[in-house]
Amino acid sequence: MSSNDFASKLDRLAQIAVRVGLNLQPGQELVMTAPVEALELTRKITEQAYKAGASLVTTLFNDDAATLARFQYAPESSFDKAPAWLYQAMAEAYRSGAARLAISGQNPGLLRGQNPEHVARASKAQAIAYQPALELITRFHVNWTIVSYATPSWARTVFPDDPEDVAVSKLWEAIFRASRVDGDDPVAAWEAHNRRLKERVDFLNARRYQALHFRGPGTDLRVGLAEGHLWVGGRSPAKNGVACNPNIPTEEVFTTPHKDRIEGYVSSSKPLSHQGSLIDGIRVRFEGGRIVEASARQGEEILRKLLESDEGARSLGEVALVPHSSPIAQMGVLFYNTLFDENAASHIALGQAYSECMVDGDRLSPEELAARGANSSLIHVDWMIGSNEMDVDGLTHSGTLEPLMRSGEWAFSV
Amino acid sequence: MSSNDFASKLDRLAQIAVRVGLNLQPGQELVMTAPVEALELTRKITEQAYKAGASLVTTLFNDDAATLARFQYAPESSFDKAPAWLYQAMAEAYRSGAARLAISGQNPGLLRGQNPEHVARASKAQAIAYQPALELITRFHVNWTIVSYATPSWARTVFPDDPEDVAVSKLWEAIFRASRVDGDDPVAAWEAHNRRLKERVDFLNARRYQALHFRGPGTDLRVGLAEGHLWVGGRSPAKNGVACNPNIPTEEVFTTPHKDRIEGYVSSSKPLSHQGSLIDGIRVRFEGGRIVEASARQGEEILRKLLESDEGARSLGEVALVPHSSPIAQMGVLFYNTLFDENAASHIALGQAYSECMVDGDRLSPEELAARGANSSLIHVDWMIGSNEMDVDGLTHSGTLEPLMRSGEWAFSV
Repeated sequence: MSSNDFASKLDRLAQIAVRVGLNLQPGQELVMTAPVEALELTRKITEQAYKAGASLVTTLFNDDAATLARFQYAPESSFDKAPAWLYQAMAEAYRSGAARLAISGQNPGLLRGQNPEHVARASKAQAIAYQPALELITRFHVNWTIVSYATPSWARTVFPDDPEDVAVSKLWEAIFRASRVDGDDPVAAWEAHNRRLKERVDFLNARRYQALHFRGPGTDLRVGLAEGHLWVGGRSPAKNGVACNPNIPTEEVFTTPHKDRIEGYVSSSKPLSHQGSLIDGIRVRFEGGRIVEASARQGEEILRKLLESDEGARSLGEVALVPHSSPIAQMGVLFYNTLFDENAASHIALGQAYSECMVDGDRLSPEELAARGANSSLIHVDWMIGSNEMDVDGLTHSGTLEPLMRSGEWAFSV
Repeated sequence: MSSNDFASKLDRLAQIAVRVGLNLQPGQELVMTAPVEALELTRKITEQAYKAGASLVTTLFNDDAATLARFQYAPESSFDKAPAWLYQAMAEAYRSGAARLAISGQNPGLLRGQNPEHVARASKAQAIAYQPALELITRFHVNWTIVSYATPSWARTVFPDDPEDVAVSKLWEAIFRASRVDGDDPVAAWEAHNRRLKERVDFLNARRYQALHFRGPGTDLRVGLAEGHLWVGGRSPAKNGVACNPNIPTEEVFTTPHKDRIEGYVSSSKPLSHQGSLIDGIRVRFEGGRIVEASARQGEEILRKLLESDEGARSLGEVALVPHSSPIAQMGVLFYNTLFDENAASHIALGQAYSECMVDGDRLSPEELAARGANSSLIHVDWMIGSNEMDVDGLTHSGTLEPLMRSGEWAFSV
């Protein structure tokens, strides 16, 4: 890729982030978070945002080196602390109407080798402090989006056999392709993609299945669906009236499981990168909606700490279908980044459910949501279970099974 | 300077910032602000802070390019907006005990050429939003400090005739020397320096002058001192009981003028870099403590807007004495950065007075402070009036003049 070509694709990624991802409105404020390495992209997004009429763009940078320094040098008593003052401020910005853009690109293995006890404590403190801001985002109080930046540490993890510059270049190609900015008219490509996702969503919502049944290597899982669950995918309307594309890329259609109606066992089909640690070869068994057995070939300790986060961490808050023919799956690359890997395979998420995935979700109280089966937790962690060997059926309320996926591909037409 | 030598001096600057500047306490949180270019120094300071027992270090980076993009691309309606949510959060962090470190290094001429009306509006919105956080700092609610980083844009402004790498190298030499980290034992050097400043401060406080009289080229100014004014310099005790060195470098001893008792005219002896704009050749005339005439050879429009910020912007909140033999003055370099230039020359500041420069300042109400002559304003802008041609006298309450400086040097011994 020539440097001109790169600059022009990065420009288009910034445009897609602002125009499609956020659908930023004239006069709207923007709060952006980014790794410091993504400075160049933050500048392009800032420019695009002001050109779209933003009143103010504020970027909060995070630095992997500073995060790591804490685990290396901070006193033992440090790890239960998180910058609540900063997250409350972000929540305040959203409440006053600011849109939210996150640039993803952290080193997936940053905290490998650090004390798992410290990692778990810091992660829990972070989750608690971040909750007020995160809740406004997951409940779509404002329009928001996530895009990616190919940081060197991430690229080296994805392409460990290549020199760093080659790895970064390959990861950029993958990001540009998955984010649909490598064609002539990225905005039109996103319009078409959003339309196709909406067709799948509309079909699944019309069927009102009571459960999904997953079968594949190491997996025989029945996931009951919440009463009044809603399938969602692609463009989503936020409560401020702005329709946004909250993930770039996105290939999934997803909905809310019933937290008390999950039975059977399931195995991960790809490693999970969780807050700087890798968890691979996960196998868990559900009874009555709760994980009662859990193991992992790698990172089992981190998985156990994760499941102990709170009561809701042992159940599911999301189930998502992604065909194996998705462009990201077809790249055949493990990205060690949920934003990409969750769009390469069908997946489930431990923890918090999304109220947008429930009929009238934003008008229901937490108690009403729980009564319909929507799970609640401080965490929301996606992990991949789909592959080209996975079959999925929908169980109708009359008790018949209808094929939804066969060998990882859609088995119904719309 | 070899790269090893540079790394070791940068390490020492980080140590001095944490140990002497902040005097950071075990278990204390730290909030740092920095230009993105200063990433390397933020990492060293973060490491030093955790080694000193910090519970959490959070860095808020700012990016000159993003600031500039706003003036280039944002809509007209943007400029009255500031991220109040972020500054309120910083104030909240200080109220809960966090220390504050600022890294200075912005491009002094960043906003040159931008619409002065927009610059003034943005600057005023910023000042109003930042007020709650700034007030906690100026009132020494917690220990705080400012250190510098030689960004390329700043270095090019200071050394315009050198290639960029040479300019950066020269500016680093100046920073290391002025910050007293180029000797064998920087901590001991700061102990000795703080002792010398304290001797001057003790002498001036014992004399209880009613006014200072400045005479030099273009200057004949009588600055009445506030009733109960206190001279301050070097190490200062914060209200949380921690003694810090709020500026690194620092050479000044300073106190509070009487806002209604300033008479005569004064000319600037160095250009002032104010929020990205340069103001040079300032000449103003005071009557009854208020500026009644003001002109500038360069940036007069910015100066006028500054004086129109609010009622208190036309009077003085600080008067400071710095001998011409100060190491920074001796470098003979104009830094276009207040942290350095104010320590190269005696100076005055438009706007807000410091309660630390009043006897019992933190126990007096705003009304009581005003009754004693302390000025209040949203702004606090230092500008340099001293030189090797400046004489300063102290006017005693019995009406006699005592020489304090002659030709820019101390004229009394301690």
